[in-house]
Amino acid sequence: MKKLINDPHDVVAQSVEGFAAAHSDLVRAEFDPTFVVRADAPVAGKVAIVSGGGSGHEPLHAGFVGFGMLDAAVPGPVFTSPTPDPILAATKAVDAGAGVLHIVKNYTGDVLNFETAADLAEAEGIDVTSVVTNDDVAVQDSLYTAGRRGVAGTVLVEKAAGAAAQRGDSLAEVAEIARRVNENVRTMGVALTPCVVPHAGEPSFALADDEIEIGIGIHGEPGREKVALEEADRIVDRLMQPVLSDLAIETGEDALLLVNGMGGTPLMELYIVYRHAAKVLADRGITVARSHVGNVTTSLEMQGASISVLRLDDELRELWDAPVHTPALRWGR
Amino acid sequence: MKKLINDPHDVVAQSVEGFAAAHSDLVRAEFDPTFVVRADAPVAGKVAIVSGGGSGHEPLHAGFVGFGMLDAAVPGPVFTSPTPDPILAATKAVDAGAGVLHIVKNYTGDVLNFETAADLAEAEGIDVTSVVTNDDVAVQDSLYTAGRRGVAGTVLVEKAAGAAAQRGDSLAEVAEIARRVNENVRTMGVALTPCVVPHAGEPSFALADDEIEIGIGIHGEPGREKVALEEADRIVDRLMQPVLSDLAIETGEDALLLVNGMGGTPLMELYIVYRHAAKVLADRGITVARSHVGNVTTSLEMQGASISVLRLDDELRELWDAPVHTPALRWGR
Repeated sequence: MKKLINDPHDVVAQSVEGFAAAHSDLVRAEFDPTFVVRADAPVAGKVAIVSGGGSGHEPLHAGFVGFGMLDAAVPGPVFTSPTPDPILAATKAVDAGAGVLHIVKNYTGDVLNFETAADLAEAEGIDVTSVVTNDDVAVQDSLYTAGRRGVAGTVLVEKAAGAAAQRGDSLAEVAEIARRVNENVRTMGVALTPCVVPHAGEPSFALADDEIEIGIGIHGEPGREKVALEEADRIVDRLMQPVLSDLAIETGEDALLLVNGMGGTPLMELYIVYRHAAKVLADRGITVARSHVGNVTTSLEMQGASISVLRLDDELRELWDAPVHTPALRWGR
Repeated sequence: MKKLINDPHDVVAQSVEGFAAAHSDLVRAEFDPTFVVRADAPVAGKVAIVSGGGSGHEPLHAGFVGFGMLDAAVPGPVFTSPTPDPILAATKAVDAGAGVLHIVKNYTGDVLNFETAADLAEAEGIDVTSVVTNDDVAVQDSLYTAGRRGVAGTVLVEKAAGAAAQRGDSLAEVAEIARRVNENVRTMGVALTPCVVPHAGEPSFALADDEIEIGIGIHGEPGREKVALEEADRIVDRLMQPVLSDLAIETGEDALLLVNGMGGTPLMELYIVYRHAAKVLADRGITVARSHVGNVTTSLEMQGASISVLRLDDELRELWDAPVHTPALRWGR
């Protein structure tokens, strides 16, 4: 295992410390228990949004804390859900009386722990609504999931819901936006290499030198199949076909195309993936009205990428374009 | 070699195609010869800035084309300087009569080819000034360089010079800013793994399982020494000591701290590096007034990082804060 770390058991705490120091204009971190909040939290009158989950997917979620997106993020241990305690603490830290939306990726541990935290917060008089994301079309159930997994589409849910909260929508309205994005986004990924969880010290799965995993999960959990390495355009076809068919997006519709790097893949390769994915959409008469290329939901140093397609309506396009000011996503402000 | 590419010889063209398609609101690409310009180039009355060099360092340079930074970027083949022809074409495409600044990383091929292009542009009546960046303190001469190498500090030169040009400075003034940043920034990097140039198909150098290279170049060219893998904080100490001693920055001064990922290193690790680097500065009584953490000058999928420290004065701080709107760096607009 070759990593720029100190003690493998300190990686989350030390990374959060560095993150908070680098972005002290935008966020502050708490450590007992560990979570990250907007520097100006709680924001009076605004619905607050909390997300979180296992670490190792950076910038998800802490990188999206700030104006126009999340009010707090709760990083668990690497690839492991945070317990209810920090989720509750984060929820209380950001609640300004207008209610709190929990955005939860669909993994058994996350769903359970966010539920418990929501119940505890409700018991303290905080109005909490939860939206669970499950945009990954690759597999129905998996290693850590009943139902589909929440992956990179979660970032689009967080951006749209965050913009809705920032413009003053009610908790019910913000939750509706989050659900609408989740219902209209599909994702599928590919891994070229495994990743190494620091405290494990060994690759989480094995791939031969000429083998890739289609439909990989963001924790390295199995996807649909291992196939021989092939040209990028053919790999993109393998990801786009199930995404588009499951989304049932049609000629004449608008889409946001997100090409996400898994952490260890050069930007050059992500643009080669984007190039063909955009062509596939154009060939179907679907307009790529918005796009994003970069590492938004990673899997440590895994090489690979995922492709997300979000069906856009006018409101979702406006919410995507709305000002955002977070460590990882920033525009219009 | 495991990469998301098609034919290894098409990687630059296809990546630039994807890049231009993803960012068509900001840039357009030309392909015969290949370069990327601001969508609104030439910008009337403004000094234009052109940079470029071998591909494989993305987002450098094309990712920094846009408002407040570069007017054009010229990507050569992977790790190979562009020829004078595309540099001249880019220079002509962005010239608006106020002159053109070439920002050139100090590698023999780049310096030579930009010089030739500048001479040809001058012969056509375009006023060109060149600033060569050489921020890497690791080695004096190296595989492709006489003198020090230009590395991640180049991004800070491009940001400040771009902001100066955007506010209306003359060519001489913009060049002075670029030189001032270069004179006040120092960088040193470390590699944990080598990278594979697509058309070569083999790692560019070898590192044992427990070995890292201190002072690595961004093409994998040798640094100061290979040492055994150790804790991140100790590695950071090895990078910070020569950077700070060469920069001769003193107690009471302000700095911009840039932690740059080499391409394959998770963001989590970059923040662990940032954490200790910021502590080293604080311990010396140097204020980290600005910071940036992310992949700005990469080396394909190499795992590793570099640390740059820029001595800030009031004007350089203002130029860093000034609005920028490029694919890879965006704020205030």
